[in-house]
Amino acid sequence: MDNTSYTPEEPIAAIATALAPSALGIIRMSGKNSIELLSKLFSRPKALLEAQGNTIVYGWIKDGEKRIDEVLVSVFRAPKSFTGEDMAEISCHGGTAVITTIFNLLLKNGFRQAERGEYTFRAYINGKADLTKAEAIREIIESRTDSGRGRAAGRLAGSLFEEISSIKKLVVDTLAAIEVEIEYPEDEETIADAFDRAGIVEAISRLKSLRDSWKSEKLFQDGARLVLCGKTNAGKSSLFNSMLKEDRAIVSDIEGTTRDWIESWISIDGIPARLFDTAGLRATDDYVEAVGVERTHDLSEDADVILYLQDATQKINKDDLLFLKDFSKPVLFVWNKIDKLSDAGIASDAGNTNDTGTSCDADSPSVSNLLSEKIALSDEEKKMIPSLKKEIYLSAKKSDGIETLVNSIKDILTFGVDTNREQAGLGSARQKAAVEEALSCVEHALVAADDNYTLDAVVQDLEDSLDYLGEITGEVTPDDVLGSIFANFCVGK
Amino acid sequence: MDNTSYTPEEPIAAIATALAPSALGIIRMSGKNSIELLSKLFSRPKALLEAQGNTIVYGWIKDGEKRIDEVLVSVFRAPKSFTGEDMAEISCHGGTAVITTIFNLLLKNGFRQAERGEYTFRAYINGKADLTKAEAIREIIESRTDSGRGRAAGRLAGSLFEEISSIKKLVVDTLAAIEVEIEYPEDEETIADAFDRAGIVEAISRLKSLRDSWKSEKLFQDGARLVLCGKTNAGKSSLFNSMLKEDRAIVSDIEGTTRDWIESWISIDGIPARLFDTAGLRATDDYVEAVGVERTHDLSEDADVILYLQDATQKINKDDLLFLKDFSKPVLFVWNKIDKLSDAGIASDAGNTNDTGTSCDADSPSVSNLLSEKIALSDEEKKMIPSLKKEIYLSAKKSDGIETLVNSIKDILTFGVDTNREQAGLGSARQKAAVEEALSCVEHALVAADDNYTLDAVVQDLEDSLDYLGEITGEVTPDDVLGSIFANFCVGK
Repeated sequence: MDNTSYTPEEPIAAIATALAPSALGIIRMSGKNSIELLSKLFSRPKALLEAQGNTIVYGWIKDGEKRIDEVLVSVFRAPKSFTGEDMAEISCHGGTAVITTIFNLLLKNGFRQAERGEYTFRAYINGKADLTKAEAIREIIESRTDSGRGRAAGRLAGSLFEEISSIKKLVVDTLAAIEVEIEYPEDEETIADAFDRAGIVEAISRLKSLRDSWKSEKLFQDGARLVLCGKTNAGKSSLFNSMLKEDRAIVSDIEGTTRDWIESWISIDGIPARLFDTAGLRATDDYVEAVGVERTHDLSEDADVILYLQDATQKINKDDLLFLKDFSKPVLFVWNKIDKLSDAGIASDAGNTNDTGTSCDADSPSVSNLLSEKIALSDEEKKMIPSLKKEIYLSAKKSDGIETLVNSIKDILTFGVDTNREQAGLGSARQKAAVEEALSCVEHALVAADDNYTLDAVVQDLEDSLDYLGEITGEVTPDDVLGSIFANFCVGK
Repeated sequence: MDNTSYTPEEPIAAIATALAPSALGIIRMSGKNSIELLSKLFSRPKALLEAQGNTIVYGWIKDGEKRIDEVLVSVFRAPKSFTGEDMAEISCHGGTAVITTIFNLLLKNGFRQAERGEYTFRAYINGKADLTKAEAIREIIESRTDSGRGRAAGRLAGSLFEEISSIKKLVVDTLAAIEVEIEYPEDEETIADAFDRAGIVEAISRLKSLRDSWKSEKLFQDGARLVLCGKTNAGKSSLFNSMLKEDRAIVSDIEGTTRDWIESWISIDGIPARLFDTAGLRATDDYVEAVGVERTHDLSEDADVILYLQDATQKINKDDLLFLKDFSKPVLFVWNKIDKLSDAGIASDAGNTNDTGTSCDADSPSVSNLLSEKIALSDEEKKMIPSLKKEIYLSAKKSDGIETLVNSIKDILTFGVDTNREQAGLGSARQKAAVEEALSCVEHALVAADDNYTLDAVVQDLEDSLDYLGEITGEVTPDDVLGSIFANFCVGK
């Protein structure tokens, strides 16, 4: 969407809920005359036209004399609406046919289909939301865990907007002092006196903190990719199911489009992670299986963590480890089926040290230590796995040791990332790029001031930094940037 | 749900929209104190508590001091609500994490998760909807085409309720006349005089018409299964895609869960039809392919119409036709790739007779006739396809002849079914069963009256018929029937 050629008040409509059979569906309208246009398709036009803002009107959507559906219409009057324009929302029955029928009827009667993010765009151009809030809306919709949702909610409530405003104030105050110096140069001796060094140093520190926040925010937004691999009989599917069961924050499942792997989103302590269960690795002449193994290889290349499963009751076949030598991605080597070890007499000590009374508690460090004395990769084997991070012991079947595995995954994912941020954080790569530009301008201004450059140079740097900060909130934002921000939204938002 | 042990006012909550990332999500609450309970999780509790019915309140859902999401809450006050109880609907951002977080928060704070159809059930027991309307709601949600939606909308508006009431009146009037006769027997000579024969005959005729309507209604509700099969190179995928493209009323796609077939819903002139594209038929030693062929066989057994595709430029292999000899389901034998025939010189006449200027219009009867002179199944081949209905000529690649195919499918599906009903029709198998029972009672009463049985016998039959008619609208409905009706609903409705 383009700020210059854009017609804000044009009536638009969009299906705002997911199009799958459900109790309710919402179709959203905004723009001049949107309530008048809708009233022509409504069994009680007068009630709708006379409805005050923030009220609900009952009736039927009608196409001429044909009744389409019994609905409730929520009416919002400008400027007290999400977009700042007159708005209406039809709450109809949640069938795909009824929702699309009503929507098509609207399109035939004066409404244009809304673009992605067009409602939020209108909220932005009508001053109802700055860009950090607009982007937070998209984030909330896309967040897969409650932690991710919480971070976005902070930005929607204005935490980032306030932090940016506060940093801008530091820069603006310094600029104001310099302007005084430029107008009345006789009052001051050097740049250093006019230049509020402490304020600029604080701005730099806070910009750096914002920039660094993106690593953690991005992790909670985009999530991580975990790939389970190993030989066919290593117990990958059991571990996959155990990890799903253990995790109470799963929000959705995806069926793989081919039978080569299945995947699901799980939560690694709030970090959304896409867990892939791959085809078993086995040297094969069979074409289908060979394709499966190749896909596993491709998936592993894109992984953030590779979980390599080994049946602890079986000897390692060194040829299998060849699979791991190509990857630079962190590998957790998982010894599975430790519940069977005590039967085999290998880990009877481990079983005995368990105070809790269950047969073998792999999440206890003492049990893990005992196991690692009995079973471990040899030095030669370790050399074949250049990116090995840790060996883990568990029983996928008995869901024993999963906690240790999840903690180890989290340690790898959050290495060097501060995930316990209390302050405002960034919500998009766009914001990060603008913060980096602003930071480099302010740093340059500091160097210029310290080196006694002309005041004009310092002013230029500080003014540039304000432009970049203004881009983040949307006060100063080129049209192409706007277009790409809203293109990532859902239709209907 | 059980009418006797049920606590209507207990606060319930449900996610009412599909749980997939979208602009908005709705969470619905009903029951005593539901607005009070929600106010404890709301940033503006006073505004919510004081809100009048049918108004909308802006605020944040909060878990203690933690902001969850910025929302709008629609408030409905008893008895002016869908359920007849106090209700609230949270319109939040449509992310899966945010919707589930809010929902779980409600469950921790006094709400119980609603059962399937529990809102509609409450509407029913609070006298807001009779059972024909309740069932119409489920129908509208599940309808896949606009025709199906329209039929259900009629029932929701009360068409079936009115028809049943009107039939009941005929029976009740007759009963009243008989009661007079029983009280004052001296006034009349025979049963025949007391018995309004014309009224009962009309009741029978209207009940029969309702019963017969179910065939057509069921077709529009449940839809039909079409299975595309044929040899690997016959062009099945092209035809599948052509049929999807041709059809502008598609409402959803389903990916097959295995790679053995893909499927999609299409509309055959308003009749929802599930179209299956199967694995190619080819005698094979390959296990995977053999499984695919077996699945095709299983799908074809459940088909309403089998579309058998044959490359018109290739000779028929009689072994392939063996596949068709087992089925009693109607088969359309589709000669594909007719666009290639003129190249091969086979159908050059057909191409030449075309007035419209395109190369070959297979939807024109004259072209079809010409083609059928050149290419057709031999008598011997026809014998191998016992349930053959028709031969069709088309070019899947050029989307030519699809209309003829669709019309032929419709003819098969609607054979003996009156699809152009103007009157009220039945919406469920349950209703049909009750109509059949009522019909048999009324017919029995007529016979009894004509044969001069005792008036008591006639009265008993007519009273029984009223009970069955009462079951349809829900005036007289056993608890187990209620339970099974609402168990078929979505949660949240």
